[in-house]
Amino acid sequence: MKCRTCGSKASINMRQHKLALCQFHYLDWISNQTERFIKKYEMFTHFEKILVAVSGGKDSLSLWDILLRLGYQAEGVYIDLGIGGEGGYSERSRDLCLNFSKKHDQKLHVFDIKKEYGETILQIMQHSSRGQKKPCSVCGLTKRHVMNLIVRNYDYDVIVTGHNLDDEAAVLFANTLYWEGDFLLRQSPVLPSGNGFARKVKPLCRFSEKEMAAYALLGGVEYIHEECPFASGSSTIYYKQILNQLEHNNPGEKLRFYLHFLKAKKNGLFSEKRLDQTSIHGCISCGQPTSNNGKCSFCRMFDKQFKGDSF
Amino acid sequence: MKCRTCGSKASINMRQHKLALCQFHYLDWISNQTERFIKKYEMFTHFEKILVAVSGGKDSLSLWDILLRLGYQAEGVYIDLGIGGEGGYSERSRDLCLNFSKKHDQKLHVFDIKKEYGETILQIMQHSSRGQKKPCSVCGLTKRHVMNLIVRNYDYDVIVTGHNLDDEAAVLFANTLYWEGDFLLRQSPVLPSGNGFARKVKPLCRFSEKEMAAYALLGGVEYIHEECPFASGSSTIYYKQILNQLEHNNPGEKLRFYLHFLKAKKNGLFSEKRLDQTSIHGCISCGQPTSNNGKCSFCRMFDKQFKGDSF
Repeated sequence: MKCRTCGSKASINMRQHKLALCQFHYLDWISNQTERFIKKYEMFTHFEKILVAVSGGKDSLSLWDILLRLGYQAEGVYIDLGIGGEGGYSERSRDLCLNFSKKHDQKLHVFDIKKEYGETILQIMQHSSRGQKKPCSVCGLTKRHVMNLIVRNYDYDVIVTGHNLDDEAAVLFANTLYWEGDFLLRQSPVLPSGNGFARKVKPLCRFSEKEMAAYALLGGVEYIHEECPFASGSSTIYYKQILNQLEHNNPGEKLRFYLHFLKAKKNGLFSEKRLDQTSIHGCISCGQPTSNNGKCSFCRMFDKQFKGDSF
Repeated sequence: MKCRTCGSKASINMRQHKLALCQFHYLDWISNQTERFIKKYEMFTHFEKILVAVSGGKDSLSLWDILLRLGYQAEGVYIDLGIGGEGGYSERSRDLCLNFSKKHDQKLHVFDIKKEYGETILQIMQHSSRGQKKPCSVCGLTKRHVMNLIVRNYDYDVIVTGHNLDDEAAVLFANTLYWEGDFLLRQSPVLPSGNGFARKVKPLCRFSEKEMAAYALLGGVEYIHEECPFASGSSTIYYKQILNQLEHNNPGEKLRFYLHFLKAKKNGLFSEKRLDQTSIHGCISCGQPTSNNGKCSFCRMFDKQFKGDSF
């Protein structure tokens, strides 16, 4: 198989795109496609200050790499959840993010949950009812809260996350299986700012997990290969397996599912009147926007005195 | 396992409903539930004249059985597609329908495609471009055309089909995977009459294939066990397998998927403005309603002189 661009030996062959490329042109293709998606979905401009939420995984670190390649002003934030204790999952992930930031001479905010709130994510999970049932939702809530905090404190214009096509398609699949109207209406490569929330965008939403793994490998992006120990058995992994099966039987199915959804939504399939009916105001504890009366979901989850956001 | 109603030995245990029943109470439960769905979705009343489309399979013959049990005025129509020649699939299916109608002393219309149009469905498939790609769509189009014809000629109020939950969920799954907006908006247990089309309803839409097979078996309904030879490898069968896998891992998933869709639709998830934009008029050849200019899709499929609807 030869590279379509230069004719040298191809390093990667993408069945779903009917496209084979060598290492150099693959990295170039991913970057150019990312730039195309950033512009297509009006995610951000070269004049805006970007905060990349990095986890140490292949997607977010590759995303940071791509944005720097494309000349964007992108700084990072790593949220240290304290998973696995000393030398564990979180520490190893943090070190990879720090190495990346040093190598590229870019600022990385490290937000240590234990230091800020007195507890690791595991401890929060154990004493909150949310954590008993859905450990991943505790992380999600915490990360959203912290990202919003950093954006506000450091005046970033946009939060950029490394969600790839597999992530987006799995969430869409789950929301479709249960016809979760509000989530379907909100799912988008761009969540605009408003009501005190920062704009959030997902430039990798059209690349599969495999494509991003190939980018990290060929681009020399060092990342943590192991999965988060809490993710095992999660519904997201289960839906990803189902989608991989559909993809295996019909290459391109995953991307089609996601893109047809975006197109149908743009063409007015859904009734927009259902949105924006919730009133948003400041949490009485942390001041972040919430639809709850009184404390926001994050502060409720703690449900006890904590140090507060000193960051 | 004991019958929940009478305490005798249960014949069937439905994990997804957490319900075990004996033979007598199972037949009773299916009938009562069917009556409940007929009323809930306002399908038809005891004063209306019902035409049941029977194929010889477990679903449609069981449906006819249930409707008669419930005291409805239900007559049948069997569309003989001429599959498998003499003694073949269609002939055996027809005989089972005729036996049922005689046993219950109910009228059965037998509509012979070859006799009426000069060709079997296989011949139509072979010379139509539609048939080359999607054999099932040739049958679907033909059946819809004939059902509409019988309803108009014999003044029935409603066409009743035996689509079960597996059928409905598979169609919904396929339409969702491709976000086929128009199909999603139209999918419903009741398609109201209008524009010259008869009302069409699906009273079994909430029963799984297994539940219907159990009804036929326990109720002594004789049906053709083999699948249509053309159905092999169809996308519907593939989507049913995926849904069965989801159901196996999470009992009730299939029903939830379908019911949550109906609920979301009722609650206004979809924008209704997209519907009813098509103008409907009479086909210049057969007079049946169509959105095409000139001939309807059925007459175009033939695209040559045929005897016409002499039925």
